[in-house]
Amino acid sequence: MPIVTVQQGPRDIALKRDLVARITDAFVEAYRIPAETVQVWIHEVPADSWGAAGKLVADK
Amino acid sequence: MPIVTVQQGPRDIALKRDLVARITDAFVEAYRIPAETVQVWIHEVPADSWGAAGKLVADK
Amino acid sequence: MPIVTVQQGPRDIALKRDLVARITDAFVEAYRIPAETVQVWIHEVPADSWGAAGKLVADK
Amino acid sequence: MPIVTVQQGPRDIALKRDLVARITDAFVEAYRIPAETVQVWIHEVPADSWGAAGKLVADK
Amino acid sequence: MPIVTVQQGPRDIALKRDLVARITDAFVEAYRIPAETVQVWIHEVPADSWGAAGKLVADK
Amino acid sequence: MPIVTVQQGPRDIALKRDLVARITDAFVEAYRIPAETVQVWIHEVPADSWGAAGKLVADK
Repeated sequence: MPIVTVQQGPRDIALKRDLVARITDAFVEAYRIPAETVQVWIHEVPADSWGAAGKLVADK
Repeated sequence: MPIVTVQQGPRDIALKRDLVARITDAFVEAYRIPAETVQVWIHEVPADSWGAAGKLVADK
Repeated sequence: MPIVTVQQGPRDIALKRDLVARITDAFVEAYRIPAETVQVWIHEVPADSWGAAGKLVADK
Repeated sequence: MPIVTVQQGPRDIALKRDLVARITDAFVEAYRIPAETVQVWIHEVPADSWGAAGKLVADK
Repeated sequence: MPIVTVQQGPRDIALKRDLVARITDAFVEAYRIPAETVQVWIHEVPADSWGAAGKLVADK
Repeated sequence: MPIVTVQQGPRDIALKRDLVARITDAFVEAYRIPAETVQVWIHEVPADSWGAAGKLVADK
């Protein structure tokens, strides 16, 4: 029963719907497990709360 | 000093208050450690950002 | 379908068995949800990989 | 630059190799972002450290 | 390519900007890796959703 | 009481000791909080369990 947690910037529901379907398919195809056993949780983090190379995305 | 992270859909404060007390008791009783050493963090994820079986909860 | 992730130092299976049962009960009683919907994942981190107050547990 | 964290039981490298490729494709296709921006981290948790319905997988 | 996830109460952007710069420097200096390889994600959790010693911060 | 979780490849204890001290200092200096309130947890993930751009580090 794999649990998938995604950290990303905010995106709209249509994109997230598509992503959750495709990630679930990835498990079904790679591990041969039922889709019902896969959960996907998307944590959307605003641009003032994450960054790379020492800078917030909000400042780029 | 165990750290507990919960991923769930949104719930009201009375339920979360009760949950945090009960999870902390679970550690005190199972591990015989002081309640002061236990932290609980609840990450509430909206229904358009998580799902199972390839579908968002918002679409069910 | 709440997901619980615990970060802790290593403990033996009897203690973890008891903890998972008690944490699950905490959700059943606080949220009135079936035990079957609760998953608990324990990440055991060795003493040379975590610390507080700027010091590794392995050095205390 | 999405970060994907998977919590699962142990699996062999061939299955994980396939999974990482397929999850990355899921982002490329759903979000139209370059594969280079996607990281996948798999946390393998032994059967005595996770469970559902109040029971460890090791006890089932 | 280390990924840093911070769980904390809400703080303003000036403090988070400073924190992300300093955490990134910590990796550059301790591990001798380029700043570009370090990502920091801050998950801000409101006072009604986390606690210690069995009590929510919102109730203290 | 911020909680820091680091996902990285394995490194030796001397490097982790230095990292934990420096990350803790980052919080003390940026947020003006006591070092005692900061916990750092390092999750070391082997090269066959994480990757970027669709490939495991073990295969690069």
